[in-house]
Amino acid sequence: MKKYLITGFSGFVSQHFIEHLEKTKTNVEVLGVDIENPDFSPDDFSNVHFTFENIDLLDDKRVENIIYRFQPDYILHLASFSSVSFSWKDPILSFRNNTNIFLNLLETVRRLGLSSRILSVGSSEEYGNVTEDMLPLREEYELHPESPYAVARSSQEQISKVYVAGYGLDIVMTRSFNHIGPRQKDIFVIPSFARQLALMKEEGKNEGTIRTGDVSVVRDFIDVRDVVRAYSSLFEDGKSGQVYNICSGEGHALNEIINMMADMVGIKVTIEADQSLIRPRENRIVIGSNEKLKRATGWRASYSIEQSLKDIIKYWKGMLHPL
Amino acid sequence: MKKYLITGFSGFVSQHFIEHLEKTKTNVEVLGVDIENPDFSPDDFSNVHFTFENIDLLDDKRVENIIYRFQPDYILHLASFSSVSFSWKDPILSFRNNTNIFLNLLETVRRLGLSSRILSVGSSEEYGNVTEDMLPLREEYELHPESPYAVARSSQEQISKVYVAGYGLDIVMTRSFNHIGPRQKDIFVIPSFARQLALMKEEGKNEGTIRTGDVSVVRDFIDVRDVVRAYSSLFEDGKSGQVYNICSGEGHALNEIINMMADMVGIKVTIEADQSLIRPRENRIVIGSNEKLKRATGWRASYSIEQSLKDIIKYWKGMLHPL
Repeated sequence: MKKYLITGFSGFVSQHFIEHLEKTKTNVEVLGVDIENPDFSPDDFSNVHFTFENIDLLDDKRVENIIYRFQPDYILHLASFSSVSFSWKDPILSFRNNTNIFLNLLETVRRLGLSSRILSVGSSEEYGNVTEDMLPLREEYELHPESPYAVARSSQEQISKVYVAGYGLDIVMTRSFNHIGPRQKDIFVIPSFARQLALMKEEGKNEGTIRTGDVSVVRDFIDVRDVVRAYSSLFEDGKSGQVYNICSGEGHALNEIINMMADMVGIKVTIEADQSLIRPRENRIVIGSNEKLKRATGWRASYSIEQSLKDIIKYWKGMLHPL
Repeated sequence: MKKYLITGFSGFVSQHFIEHLEKTKTNVEVLGVDIENPDFSPDDFSNVHFTFENIDLLDDKRVENIIYRFQPDYILHLASFSSVSFSWKDPILSFRNNTNIFLNLLETVRRLGLSSRILSVGSSEEYGNVTEDMLPLREEYELHPESPYAVARSSQEQISKVYVAGYGLDIVMTRSFNHIGPRQKDIFVIPSFARQLALMKEEGKNEGTIRTGDVSVVRDFIDVRDVVRAYSSLFEDGKSGQVYNICSGEGHALNEIINMMADMVGIKVTIEADQSLIRPRENRIVIGSNEKLKRATGWRASYSIEQSLKDIIKYWKGMLHPL
């Protein structure tokens, strides 16, 4: 039996990861930890047995107790204050809840002498400002983190490398690009659009307006269900000390995505630019290369952008019609 | 009147910096902060007026109070757990007492809206493993930090860049190479040799043995009195957001240095290799380029290696004959 410790357990990525385990593994034990309680329960799963503990990862004594008791084979470290804009408001909290919690975790595994394989989730934000001749972004490029959050993630990656080379810990790192998928909260841009469009439809409208920032920016969106399959593949076949982009390899402009979703819902949409939402110094285009991940694991993306958007809209329509 | 806040006030670099101020400035006010009390006192100085407060820089409330009251023009941030070998033993403490204390400091200056110029002292360790074709090391090289300490310093530098670009703080950064000079503690290699040689002489010997690690390694040693002049120049002429190597630009092997000092003292020395002191993965040669510092400030090194070593020996002879 393989044991998975998942931090940031109550988040949307974690839930998809457990669903992936449920579909693909037998006899798996999961211990989830988070500051917030999850809104799913063990009864939702049959193959996967999970328990949950409410803890703050800054509490190093409790982290140590839990890891010592559980002795995980795999640690999926999803816990993060992952908002760039929040990090500008409170860099100390952002740093503490990214870099420091991760360092605590590694140090616990090292002190206990465990051989757990750790997946250190990072972010495409680490690349910082990029020029178009650098696209698609490859793992070997020099990082120029440009926000407190990006620095925190880049530090996390540097710490991982030192723990692998210096202490022999088994750590695989990612730089994960923009996730999309059902159940993502509507503080993010795509679910926010989907919810607005579903609401217009619900109210019987055939047209409507979406106010947002710069919709000409192009991003590499990857379905969360492909993300968790990639994480699972990296537990099996990732190389310790290596960093892998988790991305679709394709770029889509936000206005293209809004129009695709509007067509799916049957709404004629007008996009209004809200100057207050336009960020200075933002990259025009971000697209990653997933060649390294593919070569190492054989992973391939299985969700087209159309399929992801359809599922997101279906989810938000369902949210407006709770059972 | 210009006001200097100096963190890590009780250390050997700080004392040399104050002596530099004493010689070159009039009407200067200094507030020193450190966890340990200094072993020098205001009575030792006439131009420089200083006060001292014993604080832990992790205590953000006290840091804020002190900075708010003092309103420094310049902040010289010397505080650091700067031992590489310690950082391997306790990475969390090393990170906390480098990166986290520095972030606290910047955040305080930002929140208070001060325009203090901050000197962020970093380390040549940030470069990590280097090949000889990269020498002399230049500031634009990609960093590959290879110890917890080096990661902590590299994170400090990334944080500085974000605070300059994102918040407009005025921060000049350094990567300082191996300091030498009178009053450096003999936990460091050069003063340890000097003390041993001075002791042999004191005991009337003409020959002796020094047991140490790999003495063929070449390092860029810079006199602490040149270091503090460089820091002072960077307060005047350094460019915010830029990083400057602080180094002599010359490399000397440890055995060359031992032999020079032995000649000065008049001891025939035998060097014995202690395998337990030899570090794996250590760079064979580290030499920095100081061209950027020279161009920006007009600074030039004023101490030859011979002069530095003479002064260090004189210091250690004096320590064996206290007044």
